[in-house]
Amino acid sequence: MHIAIIGGGQLARMLALAGLPLGIKFSFVVSPDELRETTCIDGFGKIVCWQLGTSAEELYAALGQPDIITIEKESVDLKLLLELESLCLVYPPAKAVACCQNRYHEKKLLEKLAIATSPFKYGYSLQACVDELGYPLVIKSVADGYDGKQQWILRTADDIDEITAQADLAHCIVEKFIPFQSEFSIIAARGRCGTIAIYPATENVHQHAVLKHSVVPASGLGRQAEAAATDYINTIMCEIDYVGVMAMECFLYDGKVLVNELAPRVHNSGHWTQAACSTSQFENHIRAIANLDLGSTQMSGSAGMLNLLGTDVPPLKSLSSQTSLHWYNKKPIEGRKVGHINFIANTREQVLADMKSVEAML
Amino acid sequence: MHIAIIGGGQLARMLALAGLPLGIKFSFVVSPDELRETTCIDGFGKIVCWQLGTSAEELYAALGQPDIITIEKESVDLKLLLELESLCLVYPPAKAVACCQNRYHEKKLLEKLAIATSPFKYGYSLQACVDELGYPLVIKSVADGYDGKQQWILRTADDIDEITAQADLAHCIVEKFIPFQSEFSIIAARGRCGTIAIYPATENVHQHAVLKHSVVPASGLGRQAEAAATDYINTIMCEIDYVGVMAMECFLYDGKVLVNELAPRVHNSGHWTQAACSTSQFENHIRAIANLDLGSTQMSGSAGMLNLLGTDVPPLKSLSSQTSLHWYNKKPIEGRKVGHINFIANTREQVLADMKSVEAML
Repeated sequence: MHIAIIGGGQLARMLALAGLPLGIKFSFVVSPDELRETTCIDGFGKIVCWQLGTSAEELYAALGQPDIITIEKESVDLKLLLELESLCLVYPPAKAVACCQNRYHEKKLLEKLAIATSPFKYGYSLQACVDELGYPLVIKSVADGYDGKQQWILRTADDIDEITAQADLAHCIVEKFIPFQSEFSIIAARGRCGTIAIYPATENVHQHAVLKHSVVPASGLGRQAEAAATDYINTIMCEIDYVGVMAMECFLYDGKVLVNELAPRVHNSGHWTQAACSTSQFENHIRAIANLDLGSTQMSGSAGMLNLLGTDVPPLKSLSSQTSLHWYNKKPIEGRKVGHINFIANTREQVLADMKSVEAML
Repeated sequence: MHIAIIGGGQLARMLALAGLPLGIKFSFVVSPDELRETTCIDGFGKIVCWQLGTSAEELYAALGQPDIITIEKESVDLKLLLELESLCLVYPPAKAVACCQNRYHEKKLLEKLAIATSPFKYGYSLQACVDELGYPLVIKSVADGYDGKQQWILRTADDIDEITAQADLAHCIVEKFIPFQSEFSIIAARGRCGTIAIYPATENVHQHAVLKHSVVPASGLGRQAEAAATDYINTIMCEIDYVGVMAMECFLYDGKVLVNELAPRVHNSGHWTQAACSTSQFENHIRAIANLDLGSTQMSGSAGMLNLLGTDVPPLKSLSSQTSLHWYNKKPIEGRKVGHINFIANTREQVLADMKSVEAML
């Protein structure tokens, strides 16, 4: 079996590392920009550069006629994806990716399914949004935003001019700012025959809008809220005929779950599954799209993940028997995700303590 | 960090797959014979061919001056290994490999450490061995034997001529045949600073002298026997200043442990650790030789491993949520180890039942 992955970053790397043991061959589609640094995926399969103007047929042939094409990022050319679907299997399906790569479509989907999300407006002036939703507001580009990019917070009337100058407001949604108690995410996989496997909810802590660390189990979530969230992702995946791993980011606010974002791919907040579950999110994505039974998502005890941002390879002595390193072979540029460390322990408190002591060593 | 592995088979493959996430670069030393099929390791690093006559310096330079050299098999040229030790770190140390690559040295080591093993003779005529040990006997070449190769069973006087014709008796040890209750192995890792991590004992079932499957926990072993075995491998590793993963194969006979063989490398009977432990034997070998803290060897429930011998890639539909496939990318030749399937379950009985149903599908 041959799977082509659109994207050549750390998620593509970890998908390949999870799929190679299954005897699967990989190839990768990168942009001219990504082609300058392919160290994440070097050695794992053919790398093909795609740019506007290359036809789907040309790309498919250059890749060596893969059986399945998948993605490691939501910002893919939708037209290309749709054309590829006439040549081979594409998972998640282009239509499902379309729902998740545009925040407005995402919000409409949630509304349609009566899934709680923050109140929002689309296609109105900022003043009209303020009038209806009040301060503060979050302005987000409908596409291409990740790690807090293309996002602005409107706190008072003084901010309106600056944000109007920076943001392409015609392509933004405006949301009520949610003063959440905590952020958490649900990672789930759905196979080609519709079976779903869901990992325990992960609590996520962000710094400067970038994920700093994740911990499982999520604190303060409660069984009912986790069940509601599980129910939500189930409903969403079935509705859009999703195949593969999806991440659903949520706020816990006033004891209730508000869905914030969907990512149609393996997700940073699911990296801990590599250490704590017999089947990681990466292997389960491969299993899902390759029509295998999904692997167990069970875990016992507690787990965590600490992102390595712009650091050199951490002193390997900082690793203990309960930690494992995943290094992406990327050049360490400030703030860039270059690796992560996974943690396992019997209790959440121990994971947090271990994380703290590793952080102190970095 | 750059690690060179001597050997290019499935063990080298799985060592590389375990080490790549740590940001380690790999290279491989293969024989002219192995060079004809490098599909196990293609893409994972530079492949250098070594043959008698190539100096250690030439090899070291051709590999790109690795920091550490390790092995995936015991049949390595000892002189080469000793010479490489003057150029870089070699783990396990050449002296430790020397103890484990020759069955006579192995037996002498066990004797010296007062570790129970089957009675044996070396350097005597077959008749003298029969006179002292009685029938049946096992004749084993001191070197290069694996998977039952270079081994003969002497049941009656009628066999003496045939075995004398086939075996190079000057380089064989003669052991009393042990009608064991079961076979089991202990996989352990010892770090450069002397810490040791030991996996639970594995019960092994062989067919035509090749490992068919492994199950953990080992049945009928009992706490005392497992503790004795654990003590044995501890003693052996310390005595020979071992660094890396070692496998110790044992017989359970009359409720007691008899050590049968030592392997100075990761071992087929430790493959289940990929599925059931947060750190596999492969990652722990890398951690040990790279001077990292050893990873956790704890497991809960039960696990197993079924070898795929000379089959095509198994129908992926035969995999369930509790199984995982490791395929080696080798040509399926009759009887050849081409992959394995790992199993996890709450109970040993469930693992065995799952194994049976997968076998029926192959």
